[in-house]
Amino acid sequence: MAKDWDKRMSLENVKVLLCDTFGTIVDWRGSVARMGERVAYEKGIEGVDWDAFARAWRAGYQPGMARVRSGERTWTGIDDIHRERLDEILSQFGIEDRFSEAEKVDMSLFWHRLDPWPDSVPGLLRLKRSFLISPLSNGSLILLSAMAKRAGIPWDFVFSSDIFKAFKPDPAVYLGAIELLGLEPAQVMMVAAHNDDLEAARSHGMRTAYINRPYEYGPDQTKDFDATSDWDVITDGIDGVADAMGV
Amino acid sequence: MAKDWDKRMSLENVKVLLCDTFGTIVDWRGSVARMGERVAYEKGIEGVDWDAFARAWRAGYQPGMARVRSGERTWTGIDDIHRERLDEILSQFGIEDRFSEAEKVDMSLFWHRLDPWPDSVPGLLRLKRSFLISPLSNGSLILLSAMAKRAGIPWDFVFSSDIFKAFKPDPAVYLGAIELLGLEPAQVMMVAAHNDDLEAARSHGMRTAYINRPYEYGPDQTKDFDATSDWDVITDGIDGVADAMGV
Repeated sequence: MAKDWDKRMSLENVKVLLCDTFGTIVDWRGSVARMGERVAYEKGIEGVDWDAFARAWRAGYQPGMARVRSGERTWTGIDDIHRERLDEILSQFGIEDRFSEAEKVDMSLFWHRLDPWPDSVPGLLRLKRSFLISPLSNGSLILLSAMAKRAGIPWDFVFSSDIFKAFKPDPAVYLGAIELLGLEPAQVMMVAAHNDDLEAARSHGMRTAYINRPYEYGPDQTKDFDATSDWDVITDGIDGVADAMGV
Repeated sequence: MAKDWDKRMSLENVKVLLCDTFGTIVDWRGSVARMGERVAYEKGIEGVDWDAFARAWRAGYQPGMARVRSGERTWTGIDDIHRERLDEILSQFGIEDRFSEAEKVDMSLFWHRLDPWPDSVPGLLRLKRSFLISPLSNGSLILLSAMAKRAGIPWDFVFSSDIFKAFKPDPAVYLGAIELLGLEPAQVMMVAAHNDDLEAARSHGMRTAYINRPYEYGPDQTKDFDATSDWDVITDGIDGVADAMGV
């Protein structure tokens, strides 16, 4: 009780919630698989496991960002990384000659049309009443803005990797966000389904909220089945963050 | 008729509307004057012309930005410029010793609480259905976000001077916005009540919408009583932009 009270009091300073997006706010695996199934149906393509396709596509995301993070490659946005990886997995799945260039461009925009988890929009609408809310995502500005418009995600503003020309967990992203806000780090809370994202945020003095999303990666999920540290908030949906923040 | 049709067709490529904020979306003069009057009433201060106070405060804005633009001063955000100028005008109006430091800090946040012109929020709600909408303002991110939350301005994202570390009409602001969006300049429309802002935007290939706000500066208004060029849209409110864009 005393501990809960202390925590609530310290969270009273929070003014801004920054949310990881892929996996935390939106279900990329289910969304990409559904869009793939629809395209396959329209084109009469059979025998593709679109859930595996979505996971393979996503698996190219970390290595693609790592080359930029390490400086091996100059700044390259996530839309280009998605597009490059698409060519690889289309041939991996043996369907590269079933799509025109225009269709491939449209497929790479699947990532602009991801569906939120069911608790995300209701939870964010509650949080928006009392806090400034924004993504802090490795997505691009146009991806995050287009996704939000389609899905009704009510961001107050959008922090994207291309604003900071860096990908999380590069400190430039967290520190850049705090500096732009002109706030103390403890006035800013990172909301994420990934312990390593929260680890980085906490190392810079931010508050932390962990959302448990044990189905994000489906059969490929190897971690983030549970909180691995005493994050300020630990819950299983964005509505749970709203509960914890008392709004 | 043919000319209108050509213009409409060319505007069909527009995907994003970037709006000047001070004067175009919000009435800074009336808002600051009203807040000043309220503070004066609470503190029993008499004899101050708060409309003149608001105009004097705003008059420090351009010279303050000019020193940053010219490189004479390293990057300094608009909140600091507002705060510095406040000290000057409080003594100019002979009331500097009527306010504590905390009260002065709160007064400098008057600029976070400006009221929209009556057509702004209804017009932006219409435009938001079909376009991405954002400020492109010399305000700071926290100023623009706090103002939007208080006033219900439904931005999709927020482009502020501190993202680009430059003030309009520095080309870095317009070009930085276009680059972050990853769009062609002609897919982006600048919406402003100031001909010089549109002049700069057009020089970078952007579309332009002029809103006539002949009362922005009150007795100090010396220009922008009318469009001085053949901007793509010329109207007298944000709802007029929505009409012109057919939404």
